[in-house]
Amino acid sequence: MSISVDTFFLNPQFQGTLQSQIQQMIAEGILSGRFRQGEKLPSSRKLASHLGVSRITVTLAYTELLANDYLTSRGRSGYFVSENAPEPPPFTNIRQSGDTVDWSRAIGRKYTGGDTPRKPLDWSSYRYPFIYGQTDSGLFDHANWRLCAIQALGQKDFSALTTDYCDLEDERLVEFIVRHTLPRRGIVARPDEVLITVGAQNALWLTAQVLLTQRRTAAIEDPCYHALRDILTQSRCHLAPLPVDRDGLPPEAIPPETDVIFTTPSHQCPTTATMPMGRREALLKRARELDALIVEDDYEFEMSFLNAPSPALKSLDKDGRVIYVGSFSKSIFPGLRLGYLVGAESFIREARALRASVLRHPPGHTMRTAAYFLSLGHYDASIRRLRIALKERSEAMHEAIQEHGLNIWGQGAHGGSSFWMRAPNGTDTNKLAEKLKQDGVLIEPGKPYFFGQNRPREFYRLAYSSIPADRISKGIQLIANVLNV
Amino acid sequence: MSISVDTFFLNPQFQGTLQSQIQQMIAEGILSGRFRQGEKLPSSRKLASHLGVSRITVTLAYTELLANDYLTSRGRSGYFVSENAPEPPPFTNIRQSGDTVDWSRAIGRKYTGGDTPRKPLDWSSYRYPFIYGQTDSGLFDHANWRLCAIQALGQKDFSALTTDYCDLEDERLVEFIVRHTLPRRGIVARPDEVLITVGAQNALWLTAQVLLTQRRTAAIEDPCYHALRDILTQSRCHLAPLPVDRDGLPPEAIPPETDVIFTTPSHQCPTTATMPMGRREALLKRARELDALIVEDDYEFEMSFLNAPSPALKSLDKDGRVIYVGSFSKSIFPGLRLGYLVGAESFIREARALRASVLRHPPGHTMRTAAYFLSLGHYDASIRRLRIALKERSEAMHEAIQEHGLNIWGQGAHGGSSFWMRAPNGTDTNKLAEKLKQDGVLIEPGKPYFFGQNRPREFYRLAYSSIPADRISKGIQLIANVLNV
Repeated sequence: MSISVDTFFLNPQFQGTLQSQIQQMIAEGILSGRFRQGEKLPSSRKLASHLGVSRITVTLAYTELLANDYLTSRGRSGYFVSENAPEPPPFTNIRQSGDTVDWSRAIGRKYTGGDTPRKPLDWSSYRYPFIYGQTDSGLFDHANWRLCAIQALGQKDFSALTTDYCDLEDERLVEFIVRHTLPRRGIVARPDEVLITVGAQNALWLTAQVLLTQRRTAAIEDPCYHALRDILTQSRCHLAPLPVDRDGLPPEAIPPETDVIFTTPSHQCPTTATMPMGRREALLKRARELDALIVEDDYEFEMSFLNAPSPALKSLDKDGRVIYVGSFSKSIFPGLRLGYLVGAESFIREARALRASVLRHPPGHTMRTAAYFLSLGHYDASIRRLRIALKERSEAMHEAIQEHGLNIWGQGAHGGSSFWMRAPNGTDTNKLAEKLKQDGVLIEPGKPYFFGQNRPREFYRLAYSSIPADRISKGIQLIANVLNV
Repeated sequence: MSISVDTFFLNPQFQGTLQSQIQQMIAEGILSGRFRQGEKLPSSRKLASHLGVSRITVTLAYTELLANDYLTSRGRSGYFVSENAPEPPPFTNIRQSGDTVDWSRAIGRKYTGGDTPRKPLDWSSYRYPFIYGQTDSGLFDHANWRLCAIQALGQKDFSALTTDYCDLEDERLVEFIVRHTLPRRGIVARPDEVLITVGAQNALWLTAQVLLTQRRTAAIEDPCYHALRDILTQSRCHLAPLPVDRDGLPPEAIPPETDVIFTTPSHQCPTTATMPMGRREALLKRARELDALIVEDDYEFEMSFLNAPSPALKSLDKDGRVIYVGSFSKSIFPGLRLGYLVGAESFIREARALRASVLRHPPGHTMRTAAYFLSLGHYDASIRRLRIALKERSEAMHEAIQEHGLNIWGQGAHGGSSFWMRAPNGTDTNKLAEKLKQDGVLIEPGKPYFFGQNRPREFYRLAYSSIPADRISKGIQLIANVLNV
């Protein structure tokens, strides 16, 4: 690559000749690693005209750098960064200017400090990745996704790709969701009751911003999805964490001052508990009594391989008090970042205005590609394939867990993609996870999902969405070995 | 398409026989528009097994619907929604349930109510679209974007496409920005001083959330980008709108209590004023005196076709007090939704944590496609083509405006893509825009960009980024006709 003339600027405050300033700019570029060995410099004519200096000034600067072995000359083809030029130091040592700002004062609100488990980005290089929410390259329908993405790049979809939707979204995707996705959850909705979001996380975040203030109370499952806890903590509302049991959130525990109830009835996150129909009705009744709203995160309903999923809470909702959060990031792939909200028009209108302010709209190409993938039936086919694989793996998990004497606390009634495990009393699963990593086993410690001071350390999650069935038995054995059970 | 068995649920509270419930579900599906004429129903065997009822119950329900002409039978190929089935009413008339929630109380914070001009989504069907920020299909390098997007869909990039980056981003894209994009603005930065965002709007929004609170003051240009005003209004900080002059924001007008200064020095939005070097230095000096931060929205620096752009404010910043906002959505296409923030590591860390909470990360495919498009040199070639086209159009604009006696208030010193126009005193450019629409002319009224009670109505923006050069003269003539100048 050649170095663009646009990267050169004269500094009017520079103390020294123009020639020395040009020399210094080039030397600094090399020392800072911006200009790399073998890269071509602009011609002296071009650089002189860009900087508004005489050509001889540039030529003299180049000659000087040639003498110092920063540059080499290849006759008529010009000047290049020399192979003997000084090596740049690693990036972390470069500072253009001192930082004189007192950032502890300048930052008005802090957002760091959540207890977010960090998954290794190179998880696929581990042999036994019992980790959650990453794509199994053997299951994802890469070929058809690619075809749909290419179709969405065509001339016919030029405007769907490039357009500024302002606060709107791809109407094809919304139509598909309304006509085909939601009816499978028993939900009837109009297009203006749907908002497309940048993943389910974005849907939960928008909902919290619209519904909660410092004076409101949110009831939340304990343990719960740690990113949801961060969202609610940042909203500064009052939090009422309610311990879940094997049927999920207990409605009778919801305190009377509650304004919004966050729940995951299909598969409680992370315990995988499925809420029975009776409790769903009791939860709706309790919400009606308190005049509270319910936010239903219906994640993993697609992964029901044992039997048909229960209808969503939203489908039983006679009052319009359930806000439904759906996602394609889980069931297609997490890097997709595509989810949706379903709720009353008055609510969706505010969430839409906030989304417009925060990011305008999800990328056009992503929305149109998903619309094709869904409407051509590839999504359904993917889900069928996924269910078959998950069923096989779930059976292998059961068998191995039983054989090696591990203890399952929770498993979804309809399926899912993980088990919630309990290690013997006194086990610290953070340390367990660290040890197992050395054996090529990735597990997820449970502590970050809990609230409060004395958070239990003996729980852990074993997901089987990314590990091949034939490695499960050995992986479980390695866990049992470390636990000495 | 055939109707999925998953859309059927039995309601335990249904008053009536199973057969009548099945009939009713199907009839409701047809009446609500979810099941359309010609669509195939599940086989009686499949539906019976899904619902856990006997096959004869389903068959009797189907036979009844056949008799009522909701369904037709095509012998062995099964049952279909009849062509004589009742037509569904339009979507707006369907309600599954009453909405008994008092949304005026349930909504904790309102986000609607900003004065956002609504551009017609069908702008390209107008003959004279003097509108801003949409993609000209004749200028965008669709073919190479497509190739890069296809490359980013390949097996080699499987993980870049699908992976959950958690709070990180595509390091290739960051590397390109650090090594090639920022040096063109005179900016030296390390990768951990850069954050990729879902468009520049998202970058501005994140910045406001991190730096501002109800107790802080933001100085802001008047007029300014209306979406920025909405962002700052929602943050509930104190706002100090400062009238801009022909050189942009006047540093001496910045009030002493200011914490953060938002500015657009390359091309003031919307007046297009370019801030001269002397004023840039005065602005930095003023910020240092007040210990205030500066947020520099460097939009449209690429569109400098008259002469080289001035170095960014950020490049003159010795203290680390400038936060720089860049965008590819403007220069590639707005539906892309890709921008970036450059600032001190302490600031970027908080913005990253907030981004993770709001949406995790921008879609992987979008980031990798942009990285290819940039590093293969297509971006630079696009910008060169864009500059040539904008120069030609800008000259045509000048000529036509002079000929027809319109009045330019502002134009970028280095180029840009629009003029800020002033109509004769007393003109309401909202009404002007409405009238001109009937002649196929789209212009942007200026009022939404201003602050306060008595916002001027006589300004308007004429952009030339989406109108072919040969239509400019006629378009300007039509504007002059309506203005009677």
